[in-house]
Amino acid sequence: MNIQDTIVALASPAGAGAIAVIRVSGTDAINICTPLFKSIHDKNLAKQKTHTIHLGHIIDGERVIDQVLVSLFRGSNSYTGEPTVEISCHGSSYIQQEIIQLLLRSGCRAAQPGEFTLRSFINGKMDLSQAEAVADLIASDNEASHQIAMQQMRGGFSNEIAALRKELLDFASLIELELDFAEEDVEFADRTQFKELVARIMKVLKRLIDSFATGNVIKNGIPVAIVGEPNVGKSTLLNALLNEDRAIVSDIAGTTRDTIEDELSIGGIGFRFIDTAGIRETTDTIEGLGIKKTFEKIKQAQVVVYLFDASLIQNSEFRIQKPSLPAASLPGGENYSSVLFEIEKIKNQFPLKPLVVIANKVDQLDSAEILNLKSQIPNIHLLSAKENMGVDELKSKLLDFVNTGALRNDETIVTNSRHYDALLKALEEIEKVQYGLETGLTGDLMAIDIREALYHFGEITGQVTNDELLGNIFSQFCIGK
Amino acid sequence: MNIQDTIVALASPAGAGAIAVIRVSGTDAINICTPLFKSIHDKNLAKQKTHTIHLGHIIDGERVIDQVLVSLFRGSNSYTGEPTVEISCHGSSYIQQEIIQLLLRSGCRAAQPGEFTLRSFINGKMDLSQAEAVADLIASDNEASHQIAMQQMRGGFSNEIAALRKELLDFASLIELELDFAEEDVEFADRTQFKELVARIMKVLKRLIDSFATGNVIKNGIPVAIVGEPNVGKSTLLNALLNEDRAIVSDIAGTTRDTIEDELSIGGIGFRFIDTAGIRETTDTIEGLGIKKTFEKIKQAQVVVYLFDASLIQNSEFRIQKPSLPAASLPGGENYSSVLFEIEKIKNQFPLKPLVVIANKVDQLDSAEILNLKSQIPNIHLLSAKENMGVDELKSKLLDFVNTGALRNDETIVTNSRHYDALLKALEEIEKVQYGLETGLTGDLMAIDIREALYHFGEITGQVTNDELLGNIFSQFCIGK
Repeated sequence: MNIQDTIVALASPAGAGAIAVIRVSGTDAINICTPLFKSIHDKNLAKQKTHTIHLGHIIDGERVIDQVLVSLFRGSNSYTGEPTVEISCHGSSYIQQEIIQLLLRSGCRAAQPGEFTLRSFINGKMDLSQAEAVADLIASDNEASHQIAMQQMRGGFSNEIAALRKELLDFASLIELELDFAEEDVEFADRTQFKELVARIMKVLKRLIDSFATGNVIKNGIPVAIVGEPNVGKSTLLNALLNEDRAIVSDIAGTTRDTIEDELSIGGIGFRFIDTAGIRETTDTIEGLGIKKTFEKIKQAQVVVYLFDASLIQNSEFRIQKPSLPAASLPGGENYSSVLFEIEKIKNQFPLKPLVVIANKVDQLDSAEILNLKSQIPNIHLLSAKENMGVDELKSKLLDFVNTGALRNDETIVTNSRHYDALLKALEEIEKVQYGLETGLTGDLMAIDIREALYHFGEITGQVTNDELLGNIFSQFCIGK
Repeated sequence: MNIQDTIVALASPAGAGAIAVIRVSGTDAINICTPLFKSIHDKNLAKQKTHTIHLGHIIDGERVIDQVLVSLFRGSNSYTGEPTVEISCHGSSYIQQEIIQLLLRSGCRAAQPGEFTLRSFINGKMDLSQAEAVADLIASDNEASHQIAMQQMRGGFSNEIAALRKELLDFASLIELELDFAEEDVEFADRTQFKELVARIMKVLKRLIDSFATGNVIKNGIPVAIVGEPNVGKSTLLNALLNEDRAIVSDIAGTTRDTIEDELSIGGIGFRFIDTAGIRETTDTIEGLGIKKTFEKIKQAQVVVYLFDASLIQNSEFRIQKPSLPAASLPGGENYSSVLFEIEKIKNQFPLKPLVVIANKVDQLDSAEILNLKSQIPNIHLLSAKENMGVDELKSKLLDFVNTGALRNDETIVTNSRHYDALLKALEEIEKVQYGLETGLTGDLMAIDIREALYHFGEITGQVTNDELLGNIFSQFCIGK
C-alpha cells in the first residue's frame, strides 16, 4: 500500500438510501476533486477553508452526475491527517458508482479495507489501540461493548499503558547510565523505588490481564447454553427477556439446524443463547448424537440454563424413590426423576460451570406443587414467562455471572486478544526484572529484560510495529473506514 | 404532519458501514443539538457559521455516545430550507439508534418518509416535479433513467412548463381584462398571436405526452420476453450482453419460479429480460398452462426475442414439407418445423409486437447449414454467445426499439404518470381553447378553459396542490430523504 496515493471509497453502508458519502483522502484529494466539482456559487473548491461545506454538482466534462454537498478538510485537520474531501451524494448505487469511477479515472486509487484509519495511525492522529477501537466501535451492538470500545478509542487504555511505559523507561535510562559508569560502581536508579515501580506495574498488568476474561465475553457476547426438550418454553423465555429490555435479536449466520443462537442484550450486555436438546439416557444412536452435541455446546458456554416445563411434571413419587429405574420421557409428560437425572448429569460432567435450573410455567401450579418442586430441586428458579414472573430475577442472576464492576467504574477492560498477548509477554518480562532485582542481577542483564517489557508495551500502542501486523489489523476493517 | 416540528432520521442506508449520517431539520434543530454536542475545541455549536463542520462528541449527560462530525446549515441555507444539523457518526446500528433515541428524547420527532424533501418543497427550495425527481434519482440504476431524473431535478421540465404557463397566463389576464370592458367591445388579446401561442403550446404538450412512452420504459426498464426451451442458451446470451457493457444485473424480487427476470443495462438503458418457456402445441394440461403464461408475458413485453439452439436443428425436410404433422420436440433435438411453428404462432397472436428471432450457437454450423437457416427463416439473427458473434448487432437492434433521439438531444422526457395525466388534461383544455378561438367563443367562456389548462400546468409544478396529493407523492420516498 502506497501512502502517497490519494484513495477513495464509499464510507456509508452499501445499498440505496437518501444519501451516500464518498470519502477521498490523500495529498492530492482537493486537487483531484476541484475540477470535478462545479459550485453553484462558482466557488473554486481549492481555495475554500477547512471544515466548510459547499453545494454544487459533480461533473464529468459536460455531463452532470449529481447535485452534491462537498465537505472540505485541509492540511492535517481530518480523520486521516491528510487533505480530505467528503462527497455527500444522492444514495442510488448507480450514482455512487459513477462518482467513484470518475474519481478513479481522475487519479484516485480504490482504498483498501481500513486504509483511512491506517493513515490516521501512520499520520499520528491516533495510536494503534485507538485505531483498533474504531473497528470495535463499529462492530459494537450493545451498551457494554460500545462503552469499552469508546473508552479505548478515546485513549483510556493507551494512556494507562503509556504512563507505565514512561516510568519504566525512566528507570531503564538510569540503569543504562549506570552501565557507562560500570567501573565506578554507582547506582543512579534507586533500587527500592524501582522495586515499588515493578510491583505497581505488575499489579496493573495483572488487573488488565484479568479484565480480558470479562472484556472478551462482553465483546463477543456471553454464551449461555439452554438445555431443554422442545416446547418447554425456550422461545417464550427469550421473548420475555427481550421485551423487558430494549435489546437486539439476531439469528447468527452459519448456525446449523441443530443449534439456534439468539443474541439478546440484557442490562446492556450481550448474551448469546444457544438452544440445545435434552440429555436423557437413550439407546437410540441418533438421539445419542444429539446428546453429544448438547455436551459440546455446554462446554463452549459460560453459563448453563436448564429449562423444563413445570406444568407437565407428573406425580411420580414412585419413580423418585426408585431412581435406578429408566427415566422414560412420557408423551406430554415430565417427571421429577428425568429432570433430576438431567441436572445430575450436567453437574457431573461440568462441576465448575454455573448452572441455573428453571421451572417454567409455574403459574399453572398450586402452592403445594410449588413447595414440592422447591423441595425436590434445591436452588430452583421459578418462572412464568407468560405471566412475567421471575424474569427480572433471572436477568439479575445472569448479570451476576459477568463482572460488571469494572464496567460500572469505567475501568480499562482489555477486549483484544492481541493486547492480551502483549500484556502477558510484558508481565513475563517484568517478572524477570523483579527476580533480577531480588537476586541482585547485574544492570546490563536487567536492562535487557526491561527493554523487552518496553517492547511489548510498545506493541499495544503501535510504537513498535511492522507491516505484517498492520496488514493483519486493518484487513479486518470495512472498506471506507 | 406538523411542519413546525423538528424532525430526525437516518439519512444514510440502514446497516453497518464506516460512517452513518443522521439528519435533523426544523426551527429548533440547532438549539436541540447544541447541548448534546461537546466540541473538542469547546466551541458553542449555536454560535457557529452556516456550512461549517465541527469535530466533537455526542453526549447524553455524562455518557459519551460517539465521536462525530457535525455539519451545520443555518437559516434557509439547507436542503430543507430550515436550520439543519447533520451528524456523521460511526456506522454501527447501535450508535445510530442511540443518537436517534437521544434526539427523540430531546425534542425531535421521527421524520416521515420523504418529509425532508416535502419541507424543501413547502419552503420553496424546489417545485413539486423537482421533488419527485429526487426519488427518481435515488431509484435510478442506469444512465438513461439517471439522466432524465437529473434533468428534471435541475428544473428542466419545470422551466418548460413554467414558460408555457407564463405566456398562457399573460393571455388569460388580457382576456379577463376584456371582460371588465365587455360593454366597450375592446380586444386586448391579439387573437392571431393567441392562436399561434395555443398552437405552440399544443405542439409542446403533444411532444411531452409522446415522450412518456419512452420515458416510462426508460424509468421502469424495457420489458423483453425471451421465448425459448430450456438450455437453448438464454443465460449465456444474457451474460454475453452483460459482459459487453458495465451493466447492472439483479434478480427482481417477487418473481415466481415460472418466470425469472434479469435486468441489464445496454447502452445506458435498462432492459428487463423475462424468461419464458416455449409455446409448442401440446395436449398436456400442465404444459398448456405454461403456454398460457408465456403468452401473458409476451403481452406485457415491449419486444419479443425468440431464441433457439441452431446446433440441435435436425435435417428434417420431410416435416417442413408436411407442416400438418404434429411437430414433436425430440429429445436433444430441434427441427425447423417446430421452430417455424412457434414463430408463426407468436406473429399471429401479436402481429404488432417487434420480434427478434435468434439462432444461437451458430459457431457449430458449417456455411451450408447457415445458408439453409437463413433461407428457412427470414430476418434471422445469427448469434454465438460463446464466440461473442452477433452480440453487438443484437444490442443495436434492441436499442432501435427505444426512441433514444430525445435522450441524446437532452430533451425533456416525461417519466411520471402523474405528470402525464396532468399534461393530457391540459391538452384537453387547450384544445377547447383552440376550438373556442376558431368558433368565436366569448371571452368569459374561453377564460374558464384557459384557467383549467393553467390549473393542470400548476399541478405538475405544485403551484396547485393538496394534502392528499402531497401525501401520495412523499409516502413513496424513503425515510431520511
